[in-house]
Amino acid sequence: MIDLYTWGTPNGRKIPIALEELGLAYRVHPVDIGQNEQFAPDFLRISPNNKIPAIVDHDAPHGPQSVFESGAILVYLAEKMDRLLASSGPARVAALEWTFWQVGGLGPMAGQLNYFALRAPEPLELAIDRFADEVRRLLGVMEGRLEKVPYLAGTDYSIADIASYPWTRAAVATLEKIQPDRPPLPAVRGWLERVGERPAVKRGMEVPRA
Amino acid sequence: MIDLYTWGTPNGRKIPIALEELGLAYRVHPVDIGQNEQFAPDFLRISPNNKIPAIVDHDAPHGPQSVFESGAILVYLAEKMDRLLASSGPARVAALEWTFWQVGGLGPMAGQLNYFALRAPEPLELAIDRFADEVRRLLGVMEGRLEKVPYLAGTDYSIADIASYPWTRAAVATLEKIQPDRPPLPAVRGWLERVGERPAVKRGMEVPRA
Repeated sequence: MIDLYTWGTPNGRKIPIALEELGLAYRVHPVDIGQNEQFAPDFLRISPNNKIPAIVDHDAPHGPQSVFESGAILVYLAEKMDRLLASSGPARVAALEWTFWQVGGLGPMAGQLNYFALRAPEPLELAIDRFADEVRRLLGVMEGRLEKVPYLAGTDYSIADIASYPWTRAAVATLEKIQPDRPPLPAVRGWLERVGERPAVKRGMEVPRA
Repeated sequence: MIDLYTWGTPNGRKIPIALEELGLAYRVHPVDIGQNEQFAPDFLRISPNNKIPAIVDHDAPHGPQSVFESGAILVYLAEKMDRLLASSGPARVAALEWTFWQVGGLGPMAGQLNYFALRAPEPLELAIDRFADEVRRLLGVMEGRLEKVPYLAGTDYSIADIASYPWTRAAVATLEKIQPDRPPLPAVRGWLERVGERPAVKRGMEVPRA
């Protein structure tokens, strides 16, 4: 059994998607970040960076194993089940490249865009433009990749797609709101549909239920 | 032989440090991002996200293997040599947690702090405060960890330390400049010294020479 600590954010949704894809049994513990529940001492013992998602795997070989950071959890779960991440070779490299690309690029930049464009107390044009340009650039990189291959790591669906799906949905929606006249991204949109149709993705995107 | 494409930035320095630690032979190809050399078509074939660092490993088992994203390169090199990242168990989890923590948190947030505090065309107080607070919080999380263990993954030096070292140096220096009155971070400073004394780290931090 896996305990999943999460909330309905793009990072929070990566892990229920992966658990659903892998067919692993899990219990959901919602951590309401609107109520600062991520600062509770019990949660900080699992996730010292006070962020969701985090897991505790009670069936790990060395006793209960906690994991924080969504990217680390995805790698951990994929390696546990030997699925969604090739064990060696170019397919492994590609899945890791695009997983780190999401974690270090698309995620933080789309997160800052959402803040400055939609939630900040004052509209700072310089900051909004900076992050909108960077998110648009990142989605353009993704577009170039998905014009050539069906999934980020190449022919096979992997943790790179799971990591990027909730963030790409959020980023495309924000850009549509603030730059409605910009050209569409047909390959990215096709990938969003292809990934979004997966039953495990549909189920994972609803965790936790409000 | 490994071809290393890099520049003298925190991300760019992670990989020469790892190559030096692992004793791998490499050729340095400076990519001057001040001259937009990261947009050259030959470089984009290796690194489609137009960012340094990237490598091409000419001794990979399936033929020349290119890798982009500094986090993916660190995992690739560690797994190639079976060093700096445990192959399984809690030590592997910890190294991956803190590597992803650097890639998704400390790196992007310190990068934005540097931009808004030191390079932006106007001083946007809201943005400077936002990123200064977040970098200070992240360094506080690191401080709590390093009060308990000598290295980010626990008892052993790992890719998590290599990933975080150049960024922590940069972040501490920026905070000292803009918040000179804030309390020091003794455990983080001790770790910076411990890691910074390593001959491989000293050599890696000088690549590429200007």
